[in-house]
Amino acid sequence: MSDTWLPTLITESPEAGYQLAIKMSRMGVKYTQPSAEAREKLRPKYAESADSLIAVSHVVAVNFQTVAAANNYWKA
Amino acid sequence: MSDTWLPTLITESPEAGYQLAIKMSRMGVKYTQPSAEAREKLRPKYAESADSLIAVSHVVAVNFQTVAAANNYWKA
Amino acid sequence: MSDTWLPTLITESPEAGYQLAIKMSRMGVKYTQPSAEAREKLRPKYAESADSLIAVSHVVAVNFQTVAAANNYWKA
Amino acid sequence: MSDTWLPTLITESPEAGYQLAIKMSRMGVKYTQPSAEAREKLRPKYAESADSLIAVSHVVAVNFQTVAAANNYWKA
Amino acid sequence: MSDTWLPTLITESPEAGYQLAIKMSRMGVKYTQPSAEAREKLRPKYAESADSLIAVSHVVAVNFQTVAAANNYWKA
Amino acid sequence: MSDTWLPTLITESPEAGYQLAIKMSRMGVKYTQPSAEAREKLRPKYAESADSLIAVSHVVAVNFQTVAAANNYWKA
Repeated sequence: MSDTWLPTLITESPEAGYQLAIKMSRMGVKYTQPSAEAREKLRPKYAESADSLIAVSHVVAVNFQTVAAANNYWKA
Repeated sequence: MSDTWLPTLITESPEAGYQLAIKMSRMGVKYTQPSAEAREKLRPKYAESADSLIAVSHVVAVNFQTVAAANNYWKA
Repeated sequence: MSDTWLPTLITESPEAGYQLAIKMSRMGVKYTQPSAEAREKLRPKYAESADSLIAVSHVVAVNFQTVAAANNYWKA
Repeated sequence: MSDTWLPTLITESPEAGYQLAIKMSRMGVKYTQPSAEAREKLRPKYAESADSLIAVSHVVAVNFQTVAAANNYWKA
Repeated sequence: MSDTWLPTLITESPEAGYQLAIKMSRMGVKYTQPSAEAREKLRPKYAESADSLIAVSHVVAVNFQTVAAANNYWKA
Repeated sequence: MSDTWLPTLITESPEAGYQLAIKMSRMGVKYTQPSAEAREKLRPKYAESADSLIAVSHVVAVNFQTVAAANNYWKA
């Protein structure tokens, strides 16, 4: 894992911030299960489970709170 | 997914903010399961599960915290 | 659903704020499962499940955080 | 339920604030399951389930965040 | 339970704050299940369950947010 | 456990802060299950469970909120 996947929390727009929140959520998984193969095997399971998808959206929401605060909510 | 689904966190009213929080919660699912067909198949399951519905409401609550803070709680 | 269920986050007292948080938590469910009949069918299940009731209280707590901050914690 | 169970979020000490957070967490359950008898029946179940007890502690932690912020963390 | 288990949220260091967050998380359980014997019986179960341990760490994280804010993040 | 695993919440970069959040999340587990052997036994289970991995990422997200706030979001 490169040392530069998270150089800053500042993004140009709310949507870019949301994308960063997704990335952060995925990295939380990646650090615990570093094998891409193992993660790939799990994908069909959580991508077809409503509860897993809701849980993923929850983690993204928490990370987005952090990114949004860092960007002062993209207010001018 | 258009690059413009989240142009701003600012909304005209608390209720519009709540609607945005719902949209954000759904996008968190959509990014992980991009197939509309797959998501549609899951709907009967979570729409008839009390625990799934509570979990959805939880994610909306977290996103609404962010939107509400961005709008300074719609205080004049 | 009327466009006016959430006209403001400001309430007269902490308790009224808590009531609003409950309403917000229920609306999160209502938007996902709009059928009153379907929701009514789920009630016996979650109302008699300790874990569901705890989960409901959790969502209310998150929404109450938002309402309380909006009201500056009802400090004079 | 009396209209006065939550007259204020201000408490004299952190510990009194923690007690209030517990009360708030229980009221979240009470509003959804108003029958004392039904709640009493659930008690043996969650009081002997590690996961339920952890979930209760989680809700208390969220409510305590609100109470602590309201009291400016009891800093002089 | 003594009236003095939480005299203050202020700690000398981040680590002492983390220890306090653990204590708070345990007290949330203790207030709901006051019997030490009952809690002891549950220990083998959650201490050997990955999901329970993750849930415990989650509660500690929430309480640590409160303690850290109270201490202004231990910034000089 | 050394008394110095958390000397400060301040880090040089967002990524170092994310690493600290991971460490904090693991310590929450370690304090509850101090046996390295027991923890090691659990690893295959949670590392191959999508829901466990999502839950881990959730805890990291909460801890990262704290670390990010402590660092004023690494804004100059």
